[in-house]
Amino acid sequence: MGIVVQKFGGSSVADADRIRNVARAVIKEKKAGNQVVVVVSAMGKTTDHLMKLASEISSNPNKRELDMLLTTGEQVSIAMLAMALQEEGYKAISMNALQIGIITENVHTKARILDVKTDKLKAKLDEGYIVVAAGFQGVTPDGEITTLGRGGSDTSAVAIAAALKADYCDIYTDVDGVYTADPRIVSSASRLDKVLYSEMLELARVGAKVLHPRSVETAKQFDVKLRVRSSFNHSDTGTMVVGEEYMEIYRPVSGVAADLSQVRISVINVPEAPGTAAALFGKLAENNVSVDMIIQTHAINAETNNIDFTVAKSDLNQALELVAEFKKEFHVEDVLINEDISKVSIVGAGMIDRPGIAATMFRALAQAGINIQMISTSEIKISCVIAKSRSEDAVKALHSAFDLDQNEEIAKVYGI
Amino acid sequence: MGIVVQKFGGSSVADADRIRNVARAVIKEKKAGNQVVVVVSAMGKTTDHLMKLASEISSNPNKRELDMLLTTGEQVSIAMLAMALQEEGYKAISMNALQIGIITENVHTKARILDVKTDKLKAKLDEGYIVVAAGFQGVTPDGEITTLGRGGSDTSAVAIAAALKADYCDIYTDVDGVYTADPRIVSSASRLDKVLYSEMLELARVGAKVLHPRSVETAKQFDVKLRVRSSFNHSDTGTMVVGEEYMEIYRPVSGVAADLSQVRISVINVPEAPGTAAALFGKLAENNVSVDMIIQTHAINAETNNIDFTVAKSDLNQALELVAEFKKEFHVEDVLINEDISKVSIVGAGMIDRPGIAATMFRALAQAGINIQMISTSEIKISCVIAKSRSEDAVKALHSAFDLDQNEEIAKVYGI
Repeated sequence: MGIVVQKFGGSSVADADRIRNVARAVIKEKKAGNQVVVVVSAMGKTTDHLMKLASEISSNPNKRELDMLLTTGEQVSIAMLAMALQEEGYKAISMNALQIGIITENVHTKARILDVKTDKLKAKLDEGYIVVAAGFQGVTPDGEITTLGRGGSDTSAVAIAAALKADYCDIYTDVDGVYTADPRIVSSASRLDKVLYSEMLELARVGAKVLHPRSVETAKQFDVKLRVRSSFNHSDTGTMVVGEEYMEIYRPVSGVAADLSQVRISVINVPEAPGTAAALFGKLAENNVSVDMIIQTHAINAETNNIDFTVAKSDLNQALELVAEFKKEFHVEDVLINEDISKVSIVGAGMIDRPGIAATMFRALAQAGINIQMISTSEIKISCVIAKSRSEDAVKALHSAFDLDQNEEIAKVYGI
Repeated sequence: MGIVVQKFGGSSVADADRIRNVARAVIKEKKAGNQVVVVVSAMGKTTDHLMKLASEISSNPNKRELDMLLTTGEQVSIAMLAMALQEEGYKAISMNALQIGIITENVHTKARILDVKTDKLKAKLDEGYIVVAAGFQGVTPDGEITTLGRGGSDTSAVAIAAALKADYCDIYTDVDGVYTADPRIVSSASRLDKVLYSEMLELARVGAKVLHPRSVETAKQFDVKLRVRSSFNHSDTGTMVVGEEYMEIYRPVSGVAADLSQVRISVINVPEAPGTAAALFGKLAENNVSVDMIIQTHAINAETNNIDFTVAKSDLNQALELVAEFKKEFHVEDVLINEDISKVSIVGAGMIDRPGIAATMFRALAQAGINIQMISTSEIKISCVIAKSRSEDAVKALHSAFDLDQNEEIAKVYGI
């Protein structure tokens, strides 16, 4: 008998019918002889509705109270799912974060999990209950209610799976797994049977929306066997996210993704002096604005530099305020913004020991007539900033250049 | 500096504007130099909406899960009110039953409060916070979430007031106090400045809907100074519910009320044998069907009795099932139901040492041509079951017969 943690998002529990569908997926695992914990998000648009309610009272609601308000959404959905499981004749019990003991730091709206207590969870599982756990929420050691921020329910599921040493943590989504590229853009994209944590992490970071990077990080850290599965087809096992010990790497690139949510900020003619770049990026870091790509160019015969970098659109206003301060302090000539960009990336653990991957990428883009504005690389990822209008062309060109189009063969090689 | 506990019902917090209105009533008490705890119910029709959600999953939802579901309603409203108070520049913090420590017995949907912890409440009040507390909900010593049943938020407020030894517990309602009769029926009804716990308790039991009997009982038990005040006029002090030491009794009857929610069940020709009545009422009691009035009549020259009693309409179906069992076991001839009844009652602590009150009541009804079907009495209450169609006439006749119409004088005498 194993332990399985399942996670269903808000759209999977949006109404009574969908909740009954989720109950069927849960019962399938229970019938297979497993102890089951199901983590759910708030029903459908509940969180948006609650945010709107708060906005009628305050344009900038207190974060502690916002957490009190938002966490009711998950408490509703866990009670509903527990009722649906009971209706099918199964022993089920809902538990909120406080009842389980999902302990977080004392930070509202984006707390990190410090610990997941397992005594009550295990007791209920041992008594034969299916435990329906509230995602997205936590509690501080003082009993204050917190939320985990974006992707929070994925993280709740992984943390619970880690604490229980579960056999699997299954994240159910609208898609049936992780693909070599977005199938809506690249029709020949193939589903990966397995993908490495490190690859999944980079894919999540560069725009693949299947899993939140934090949940992948946590899964990697605690060796949680994460599976991405379909809410609609419960018998499909989807994509498994695994450690390197579970997979031989046969190909250099596992996936191609595009991120359209970045903005490029260009700081023009920054007088040359020691520490200017550090001053700029230090200021941004202190204010939690995370900078993705950076290029510094030196004009020949001039005593100034240009500094270009990208930030997420959601951070743009704050970034611009900080850059304006910097501009004043350091007598910068101008600041330009370019929202018309896309960051296309290739990700693959196999590129580490294969030379020429970057060259192949640049050549493929050049052959498609796509101009590269900025480049950044990590051990297992290469990203290029290009014009937004060419984003889909770039993804298709790269998918083809790295032989990801050959679905059948790849699947064979990969599906070890 | 005093401590004031305020309670606002669901209609008082139905939307953002009304929540702001509540915030003003709270701030008024805070500005007067008091430490303030505000207890609120769920916003408007939230509880009905949640019940409907549950009914889409199950026709008979698990009570524990129903409590998980319903308690989210109060958590939403406390967060909203705390935000509204903060928006006005006041320090406010919402606390649910678990955070406060409102400890109940382990019974779902109608738990009784065992204890209210005051350490966290007092700490927050001493730090200058207005505490916004969730009504209607509790938590067992094991951390299970419970609800208190009908009138639960009133009871929460009184229990918190008792635990804090508050100076006042103010229950804000749609009306501005307790009246000698329902002003919609008796235009000359006058508001009582003070009313005894015992009178309020009987008034609540016989149909006056201002306060739930449980909250009055708790207030009486712990000497909580309860006031019924208007949600719309915050400067009016309303009606104070007090102990006998605070009031000389000048008049025999304080109020007249009618209860239209009772049904009369007649069990016809019950064979005479020892223990038959005990068997019937024992069966009803075991199943928590509470019986109000009972009449047993013996037919001369026959060996059978008729047993008549009244129950609340909400208990009718269950009562009939139990009576059917009884009918089979004891070879009863027939069972009749009469829903066309009203129970009119007069209540007054002054009737204890004044003879002739019952006679005055019966005479007044007779003079109005109203037939009395059943009678029951307590120390400070006399109730008569009459035809529903004559209910308003009866209330008017009794209001007049006991001189309650003389507003001005009564108010003078009463307003000690």
